[in-house]
Amino acid sequence: MARFPFSAIVGQDEMKLALLIAAVDPLIGGVMVFGDRGTGKSTAARALAALLPPIAVVEGCRFGCEQPGQCPGPCTGSKAVRQPVPFVDLPLGATEDRLLGALDLERALRTGERVYEPGLLARAHRGFLYIDEINLLEDHLVDLLLDVAASGQNVVEREGLSVRHAARFVLIGSGNPEEGELRPQLLDRFGLSVDVRTPREIADRVEIMRRCAAHDADPASFAAAWADEDGKVLQQIARGQRKLAKIEVPEAVMVDAARLCSAVGVDGLRGELTLMRAGRAYAALKGAKAVRREHLVRVAPLALRHRLRRDVLDESGSGARIERALDELFA
Amino acid sequence: MARFPFSAIVGQDEMKLALLIAAVDPLIGGVMVFGDRGTGKSTAARALAALLPPIAVVEGCRFGCEQPGQCPGPCTGSKAVRQPVPFVDLPLGATEDRLLGALDLERALRTGERVYEPGLLARAHRGFLYIDEINLLEDHLVDLLLDVAASGQNVVEREGLSVRHAARFVLIGSGNPEEGELRPQLLDRFGLSVDVRTPREIADRVEIMRRCAAHDADPASFAAAWADEDGKVLQQIARGQRKLAKIEVPEAVMVDAARLCSAVGVDGLRGELTLMRAGRAYAALKGAKAVRREHLVRVAPLALRHRLRRDVLDESGSGARIERALDELFA
Amino acid sequence: MARFPFSAIVGQDEMKLALLIAAVDPLIGGVMVFGDRGTGKSTAARALAALLPPIAVVEGCRFGCEQPGQCPGPCTGSKAVRQPVPFVDLPLGATEDRLLGALDLERALRTGERVYEPGLLARAHRGFLYIDEINLLEDHLVDLLLDVAASGQNVVEREGLSVRHAARFVLIGSGNPEEGELRPQLLDRFGLSVDVRTPREIADRVEIMRRCAAHDADPASFAAAWADEDGKVLQQIARGQRKLAKIEVPEAVMVDAARLCSAVGVDGLRGELTLMRAGRAYAALKGAKAVRREHLVRVAPLALRHRLRRDVLDESGSGARIERALDELFA
Amino acid sequence: MARFPFSAIVGQDEMKLALLIAAVDPLIGGVMVFGDRGTGKSTAARALAALLPPIAVVEGCRFGCEQPGQCPGPCTGSKAVRQPVPFVDLPLGATEDRLLGALDLERALRTGERVYEPGLLARAHRGFLYIDEINLLEDHLVDLLLDVAASGQNVVEREGLSVRHAARFVLIGSGNPEEGELRPQLLDRFGLSVDVRTPREIADRVEIMRRCAAHDADPASFAAAWADEDGKVLQQIARGQRKLAKIEVPEAVMVDAARLCSAVGVDGLRGELTLMRAGRAYAALKGAKAVRREHLVRVAPLALRHRLRRDVLDESGSGARIERALDELFA
Amino acid sequence: MARFPFSAIVGQDEMKLALLIAAVDPLIGGVMVFGDRGTGKSTAARALAALLPPIAVVEGCRFGCEQPGQCPGPCTGSKAVRQPVPFVDLPLGATEDRLLGALDLERALRTGERVYEPGLLARAHRGFLYIDEINLLEDHLVDLLLDVAASGQNVVEREGLSVRHAARFVLIGSGNPEEGELRPQLLDRFGLSVDVRTPREIADRVEIMRRCAAHDADPASFAAAWADEDGKVLQQIARGQRKLAKIEVPEAVMVDAARLCSAVGVDGLRGELTLMRAGRAYAALKGAKAVRREHLVRVAPLALRHRLRRDVLDESGSGARIERALDELFA
Amino acid sequence: MARFPFSAIVGQDEMKLALLIAAVDPLIGGVMVFGDRGTGKSTAARALAALLPPIAVVEGCRFGCEQPGQCPGPCTGSKAVRQPVPFVDLPLGATEDRLLGALDLERALRTGERVYEPGLLARAHRGFLYIDEINLLEDHLVDLLLDVAASGQNVVEREGLSVRHAARFVLIGSGNPEEGELRPQLLDRFGLSVDVRTPREIADRVEIMRRCAAHDADPASFAAAWADEDGKVLQQIARGQRKLAKIEVPEAVMVDAARLCSAVGVDGLRGELTLMRAGRAYAALKGAKAVRREHLVRVAPLALRHRLRRDVLDESGSGARIERALDELFA
Repeated sequence: MARFPFSAIVGQDEMKLALLIAAVDPLIGGVMVFGDRGTGKSTAARALAALLPPIAVVEGCRFGCEQPGQCPGPCTGSKAVRQPVPFVDLPLGATEDRLLGALDLERALRTGERVYEPGLLARAHRGFLYIDEINLLEDHLVDLLLDVAASGQNVVEREGLSVRHAARFVLIGSGNPEEGELRPQLLDRFGLSVDVRTPREIADRVEIMRRCAAHDADPASFAAAWADEDGKVLQQIARGQRKLAKIEVPEAVMVDAARLCSAVGVDGLRGELTLMRAGRAYAALKGAKAVRREHLVRVAPLALRHRLRRDVLDESGSGARIERALDELFA
Repeated sequence: MARFPFSAIVGQDEMKLALLIAAVDPLIGGVMVFGDRGTGKSTAARALAALLPPIAVVEGCRFGCEQPGQCPGPCTGSKAVRQPVPFVDLPLGATEDRLLGALDLERALRTGERVYEPGLLARAHRGFLYIDEINLLEDHLVDLLLDVAASGQNVVEREGLSVRHAARFVLIGSGNPEEGELRPQLLDRFGLSVDVRTPREIADRVEIMRRCAAHDADPASFAAAWADEDGKVLQQIARGQRKLAKIEVPEAVMVDAARLCSAVGVDGLRGELTLMRAGRAYAALKGAKAVRREHLVRVAPLALRHRLRRDVLDESGSGARIERALDELFA
Repeated sequence: MARFPFSAIVGQDEMKLALLIAAVDPLIGGVMVFGDRGTGKSTAARALAALLPPIAVVEGCRFGCEQPGQCPGPCTGSKAVRQPVPFVDLPLGATEDRLLGALDLERALRTGERVYEPGLLARAHRGFLYIDEINLLEDHLVDLLLDVAASGQNVVEREGLSVRHAARFVLIGSGNPEEGELRPQLLDRFGLSVDVRTPREIADRVEIMRRCAAHDADPASFAAAWADEDGKVLQQIARGQRKLAKIEVPEAVMVDAARLCSAVGVDGLRGELTLMRAGRAYAALKGAKAVRREHLVRVAPLALRHRLRRDVLDESGSGARIERALDELFA
Repeated sequence: MARFPFSAIVGQDEMKLALLIAAVDPLIGGVMVFGDRGTGKSTAARALAALLPPIAVVEGCRFGCEQPGQCPGPCTGSKAVRQPVPFVDLPLGATEDRLLGALDLERALRTGERVYEPGLLARAHRGFLYIDEINLLEDHLVDLLLDVAASGQNVVEREGLSVRHAARFVLIGSGNPEEGELRPQLLDRFGLSVDVRTPREIADRVEIMRRCAAHDADPASFAAAWADEDGKVLQQIARGQRKLAKIEVPEAVMVDAARLCSAVGVDGLRGELTLMRAGRAYAALKGAKAVRREHLVRVAPLALRHRLRRDVLDESGSGARIERALDELFA
Repeated sequence: MARFPFSAIVGQDEMKLALLIAAVDPLIGGVMVFGDRGTGKSTAARALAALLPPIAVVEGCRFGCEQPGQCPGPCTGSKAVRQPVPFVDLPLGATEDRLLGALDLERALRTGERVYEPGLLARAHRGFLYIDEINLLEDHLVDLLLDVAASGQNVVEREGLSVRHAARFVLIGSGNPEEGELRPQLLDRFGLSVDVRTPREIADRVEIMRRCAAHDADPASFAAAWADEDGKVLQQIARGQRKLAKIEVPEAVMVDAARLCSAVGVDGLRGELTLMRAGRAYAALKGAKAVRREHLVRVAPLALRHRLRRDVLDESGSGARIERALDELFA
Repeated sequence: MARFPFSAIVGQDEMKLALLIAAVDPLIGGVMVFGDRGTGKSTAARALAALLPPIAVVEGCRFGCEQPGQCPGPCTGSKAVRQPVPFVDLPLGATEDRLLGALDLERALRTGERVYEPGLLARAHRGFLYIDEINLLEDHLVDLLLDVAASGQNVVEREGLSVRHAARFVLIGSGNPEEGELRPQLLDRFGLSVDVRTPREIADRVEIMRRCAAHDADPASFAAAWADEDGKVLQQIARGQRKLAKIEVPEAVMVDAARLCSAVGVDGLRGELTLMRAGRAYAALKGAKAVRREHLVRVAPLALRHRLRRDVLDESGSGARIERALDELFA
C-alpha cells in the first residue's frame, strides 16, 4: 500500500520533531512514543522512511551493505542496487533468534554451509525499527535492542563462535501507559519520548478524514499534491546532517540544562547529556550556529519527560512539570 | 449437515448487517461478535458463506488460487474447479504453526521437497475465518490474525526463508463479555462489532424452533422454500460490490462523524475512519450514490461500540451511550 | 468383573432416564452428571452398555467398523465378529494424542507405514465415553470432545495430512460441583444433565448392600435373576429408536417450551431446542405419537438445569427453580 | 538391615488391624495412614511383609510371575525361586514411567527388542506399595494407582501398543494432615484409614527404646525372641484367608451399617460397602461364621473416618464423631 | 588454600561437638546447622575433614573404593593410594543427575561403554557432604539425600537398569531460619542440629581476626602451632570409635530420655531414639562405659532442638524450651 | 569508542576508592554498586580497565594465558601479544553455559575435538566482570560467580568430565535498590559496596557536560589532556601492590574493627575480616607501613554498609548508621 506523505500528516508535532532529530543524529538513542490506541503512532515514522531517498545496497546482500564485504556475508554482489529505506515492524512475540539472527552450529558442522541467518536487526540496518507495545517485550530483549541501537553493532555469540554486523537504525518503541510501562531503568535509556494524542478539534479530525479518503481513493495523485512539502522536509534534514558537527554549546546553555534537570528531578545525568545533544540537532535543523536557550526549551519535553522521578505530592503529569519548570526558570 | 438458509434466520439484524457490509468491503477489518452462549453466533456467518456462489479454484491447489501459479505452490493444476466459499472454524488451542502454516527446514534439507505446509489461514482464503471465544487466544496470535486480515497477505518467516501467500478473508471473532475481554488495543483493530442476544419474544422463539424442526426434518425442502429470499440477498451484495468505489462522502457527513466520535469519547481516529468506510458500504448496499446522515446513524453502533473509553461515571452500556449521542446530535 | 444388571440399580431415576434418551437419540449431545463422590455415577452407564446387544465389527479393525473399508484402515478383515458395546473410561491426565489418536509423520516418512494410531475416541465408537471429573480436563479438550460428540466425526490434522473417522458415542461427563465447575460456555453444549445423590432411606441403602453382596458372591446367578427386567428395557429402547423419526411436536408444546425457558432464565436457544428433542425421544420411549406437555415436564430438569443464568437473588438450586416454574406455568 | 518383628511393635493397634484385614482381603482397596512424623508409620507394614512366607517366583521374571508365561515377558525361566514378599517404597518425585513402566517404541522399532521396561508397580506385585506423603503426588498418579490397586491390573498404552500385567498389591499411603490433604474424591477411594500417633505413656516409650536398642545390638537374637508371637499372627492370617468366602452378613448388620453411615454423614455408598467387606474380613480373622455388630463396631473407624463430610458446626475430629455415633446407635 | 586447623576455631562448641559425634557414629543421621550468614558455618566441618588421616583408595576408582571391585567400576586398579578425606560442597542448583550420578542408556547402547557417571554422592563417599542453604534445594532431593545418608547406599535406577554403590558420608546442611525453613517432615529426619551465632565478646572477635591474619600470612607455621591440639582431637575420635559398640544405656537413662521428649513436646519417636544414640557416642568420646544422665543433658539440645512442635503460647526458642525442661526434670 | 579517562571522572569518590582497593587486592571479593539509573555506574570501572597497562597473552589462547599451557587449551601459541585489560559486560539473561563455558560431550565423542568452549568468565580473566542489575540474575548464578571470584578458579563439570581454568577478575555488580535487592546471604559475600548518586551541585553537572562534550568532540586530545593525572593513579596502584604484603595490623586496630562491627550490628564475621583487609590495601595505597584508625574509618562504609542487620527502629540508612557509630566510638 502506498505510504502517506510525511507532510500531509495533521498535527503530531512532537512526533515529527523527534523523528527529524533522530534523522539528523541517529545516535540520539531511540524514540519512545506514548499514546492512545488508534492515533497512528507509526504513521509518521513510516512516512518519514518512505520520504527519505532510496539507499544503495549491494545486490543480494542480506545485511544491507553499502559496499561489498562489510558484513559476515555471503555478500559477493558486484553492483549496488537502490532500495527503499527499510522500515521493520517487530511482530509481537518475536523470539531472540528472530530478532538478532540465528547462529546454527549444527548445520554448519553437518553441511559446512551458511552458519548465520540474519534477523530483523540486520533488515532494519540503515532504516527504522518500530516496536509496537514495547512494554510487552521481555526485558532482556529491550535491553539488548537498546545496546544495539546505541552502539550500531549487533554481536551474536554462541559457543565460541561470534558474528558481528552493523545495525544502525532509529529505534522507535510505542506503548500505552494504561497497559503497564517499561521499567524506569529501560525507559531512561531511550533518548527521546513523545506523546501522541487524539486530536480534539473537529476541524482537525475532518481534515484527517478528508486526507485519508483522498489517499485511499487515489494514492498517486495525493502523493503528487504533497511532493513539494515533502521536498522541503528533505532539504531541512540534509542541511541538519551537514551542519551538526559544527554546532557549539555555550557555557550558559549548559548551566540552563543542568538547572532545568535539577529543578524537575531527573535521576542521573542522561537528562542533561541528551538535552545538549538534542539541542544541537535541533539547532542544526534550524540552520543556527550554536545552541540557544530557545532550542533547549523546544526539545526539553522530548528529552526529559520519561526521566522524571515520580513525585507523590505532585500529581500533574511529567509534561506539565517540565513546562512549569521552564516557565519558572527561563520566562 | 446442510446449512441453514441466511434469510431464514430470525432476528440477529446487527449480525446480518455487519456480514453484508464485510461482504461488500472485506477490508473493513473483521467483525467482533459479543453475546450470550447458545445464541447461534456463528449461524449467520455460516449461512452467508453457504449462500455465496461457489468460487473457482485451481485443481489441487492447497492455497485456494483462482489462477495457477499465484501461490508458493505446488499449484500446477491446469483447470479450475468450483468449490464452496470456505468457512474455517478455528479450534480452541490451535498452535501458531497450525494457523499460519509450517515451514519445515529440516525436511526441506533432507528430502529436497515440500517446504511449506499451509495452515488454516490459507484454507480460509477467499472466505471466512470464525474464531469462537477469541479472548482465549494468545494476544500475539490475535495481533497476527488482525495483521493478516488487514493486509490480505500471510507472511511466514523462519531462519532466512520466507513464504508469502494471499489470505483474504472476513475475520469473525466471538466472545462472551462475562469471560474476560480482549485488550482494548486489540479490540480497537476490529472494524465492526455486533451484539447477539437471546430473543425475548415468545413468538420469535417459537418461530426459531419451528424453523429448526423443519430444517432438521427435511433440509432440502426447507432450503427450497427460502431460495427466493436468499437470491435477493445475493443480488443486493453484488450491487453493493459494483457500486462501492463510486460512493461519495460529503463534507457535512464527515463533520457528523467527527462530532459523534468526539461526543461518545473514542480514543484515536479509527472510529471515524471506520464509520466513513462502513457508511460507504452501507450506502452501496442500499443503492445510494453518496453517504447520508441516516446511513451513518445506522452503522454507528457497529463501528463504534467496541472503541468507547470506559467512563466510570456513566454505567450505561456502550450501545446506550452511542444511541444517546446520536439522539442529542442528530435528532 | 461381571457388570451389574441395569435394572437392578436402586434409584438413580434421572440418570437412567437420561441414558435411555441418549440411547434412542445419540445426537442429543452428551450427558453431564453432577453428584457426590461414591454414588456410583458410572454404574448405570456401564450397566446399560453391558445390556445392549453386541455389535458386529470387522475383524481386526481398530476403528470399530461395521463394514470393511469405512475407516482410514488398515481394515481389510473380510468377516465381522461380535463385540460388546464399547465403554471407554478416560484416564485423568490423558493427552490430546491419546484421546484423538496420533498422526506420526516422521515414522510415515521413514518407514512408509502406519501413519495414524487411533485413540480413545476411535475405541469409543458406537458405544460410550465416560469422563470422570471432566472439570479437571483442559478446556480445549472438552471443547473438542463436544465437537466430536455433536458431529459424530473425529478429524485429526497435522501438517497438511488429515485423517477422519466416524466416532459416534454417548458422551458422559461427571463432576462434583464442590470441586469447581466447567465454564458455562462448555456446560451449555451438553445436551442433558442429571443429579445423582446419596440415597437417604435406610431401606434403599440396605437394598443396595444386599444386591451388591449378592452380585459379589455369585455374579452369574444375580444376572440371571434380573434378565427379564433387563430384557424389557431393551425392548423399550428398540421401540423408541424405531418410532423417533415420526414423533410430532405440536405448536402448543413449542410455546410451552419457549415460555418455560424464558421463565427460568436460559441464555441462548439451546434450552428450548434440546427440550424439544428430548421430549421427542421420551415420547418415542413411551410409545406416544406426539410430544405432550407431560413429556416436556418430565424431561425439563434434564434439558435445562445446567443452562440457568445464575440469579444472585434466588439462592435455591437450579432444579428447584425449574420445578417452581413448571408449577407456575403448567399446574 | 534386618526388619523389626511385627509382633514386637509397641502399640499401633489400628495400623496392625488394617494390615491384617488387607492381608486377608487385598481387594479392600488400600490403607491411608494419617499421623505425626517420626512415628514409624511404615514400620508395621515392612514388618508384616517380612513376616509373610517367601513367595515362589519364576527365575529371572521381572514381573514377579508365579508360573512362566503369565506376563508380557521375557519370562522363560523354567524353575521357580523363593523370594521375600516385595515391599516397594515409592520415591518422592517418581515419574509416571518409573511407576507404571515404560513402553519404548523407538527402541522397539530400531532394535526389534525389549519394548517394555516394567516399573515399580510390577515390582510391588504380590506385595506392598508404600507411598510416604502421598498428598505430594500428582492427582492423576494417585488416581491411576487407585485404579490399579482396585483392579489388580496395570495397563500401559502408547500409540496403539498396549501392555498389561498383573499388579496385585496392598497400597499404603501416608500423610500428615498438617501438610495438606488429598482431595476428598481420592481419599474416598481408599478402603481403610488409620491414625498413628506418638505414644503418650512413658512406659511405652521406654519399652520402644529398649526393643530398638535390643534390635540394633543383635537383630538375630531379637528376631528369635519374637518368632513364636509372629508365628501366631501368621496362622491367624492363614485362617482368615481360608474362611473369608464363607462369612455371612445378616440383614440386621446391614441395617446397622446403613444407619451408622447415615448418622455420621458419609457421602455416597462406599462407606457401607467397605464397612460390610471389612466386617467380613475381621470376622474371618476372628474365626467367626458371620459378621456381628461387635465386628462392625471394631472396624467402623477404619472404614469411615476418611469419608465424613466436613461439618462446620462440629469441630470434633472424624474419629470422635464416629465413636459418638456408635455409642448413640448401638450402646 | 590451606585449611584452618580444627582446634584453632574460636567458639562454635555445639558445631564441633556434633561433628565429633558424627565422626564416631556416622549413622547418627546428618547435622543441620542453623545460623547467621558469615559465621563460618562450614569452617569447622572443612577443618575436621582436613584433620582426619588420609584414606586408602584404589587407584583410579571414581567411587572411592577401599578395595578393588567393591563398586560398579571400572575399578581395576591394583594398588591403593592415599587421598584426603573428601569434602564435597554441593553447588546451588545442582541437578539430580549431578548429585546421584547419571545412567546414560543411549550411550551404553550406542557404544557399549561406560554406562554410569558417578555424581557428587560418590565423590563424598567416606567423607563429608556439605549443603549450604539446604532449604533452597527441592524437597525430593533432600528426601533422597537423607535416604542415602541413612542407608549408606546410593541406588540409581532408569528403565530397568540399576546401579548401586556405597555412599557413606556425614551429611551437613545449613540454613538461615530467616530465609524459610525445611518442612518439619524433612527436618525431623536429620539426626542432630546446631546453632552457630556471631560471637558477642570483643575479645573473641579480635582473637578470630588475629588467627585469620596469622593463617593468611603463613598457613604452614599456623598449622604447625596447632598440630598438638589437633592430634588430641584425633585420639579422642579414635577412642570413641573403638568403644562405641560396648557402651550401655541403663534403664533409668531411657526413662530420662522419654520424660524429656514428652515434656518438651517432640512428635514421634526419633527424638528419644536419637538422644540415646547420641548419648552413646558422647559417652564413648568421653571414655565412659555407660551413658549417664549428664551425657544426655549435654547432647539433648543437639538431638531435640529441630523436633519440637511449635507452641504458639510459648514464644521462647526451641533451645530455651529444652534448657528449661532439663532444669525442671533433672536439676 | 574511546574510553573516558579515569581521572577526568567528576565525583564518584567511593566508587573510585573501591576500584583502587580491588586493583591492589583483587581477593577483596567483588564490589557491589548501589545507585540511581543513569549515573554512569560502570564508567569508572571501564575507565580503570582502560588505564591499566596492556597484559601479555599467549597468541590465540582463548583463556587469556600469560604463558603457554596454563589452560585447558588449545593454547599452543609460542609468542605473547599485548592486549588491553579485559572488561566484560554481562548481558541480561545470559545462560549458565554462556557464563561458565560449555562442555559439549556429544561433539567430543562424535568428532574427537574441541570439548570445551570457554565462556565469559574466561574472557574476564585478569580483568573486570561487570554485571548490571545483578539482582535480576538467578541466585545460583550469583552464588557461582561469587565462588569463582573468591577462588580465582572456574570449575565446570559434566558427567564425569571436568575442566578447570584460572578466572581471576574484579567482580562488579550494580543494582538499583528500588528494583529489589539481592538476598542478604549473597550481598554479604561481596567484599565492598559503594553508593553512586546523581551529583547535586550545578557546577559539577556543568563540568560533567563540558567534559563529555570535549570527549565526544575529540577523544584523542581529551585523553592527552588527562594523561598526566592518569599516570599518577597508575603509580599509586603499582606502589600499593608492591607494599601490600608487608602492611601490619596492630592489635588496637583489630579491637577498633570488632567494636565497630559490634556497634553497628553486623551478622557474622565477614565485616571485620573485610575491614581489616580493606584497611591494609588502603594503607598500602597511601604508602603507610601499618593500618591506622584513620584508614579503618575511611574504608568502613565500603566494607560494612551492605552487611548491616535491618533495624526496624532505626530508619536511617546503613551509611548514616555507620557514620554515627564511627563518631561515637572514635571521635
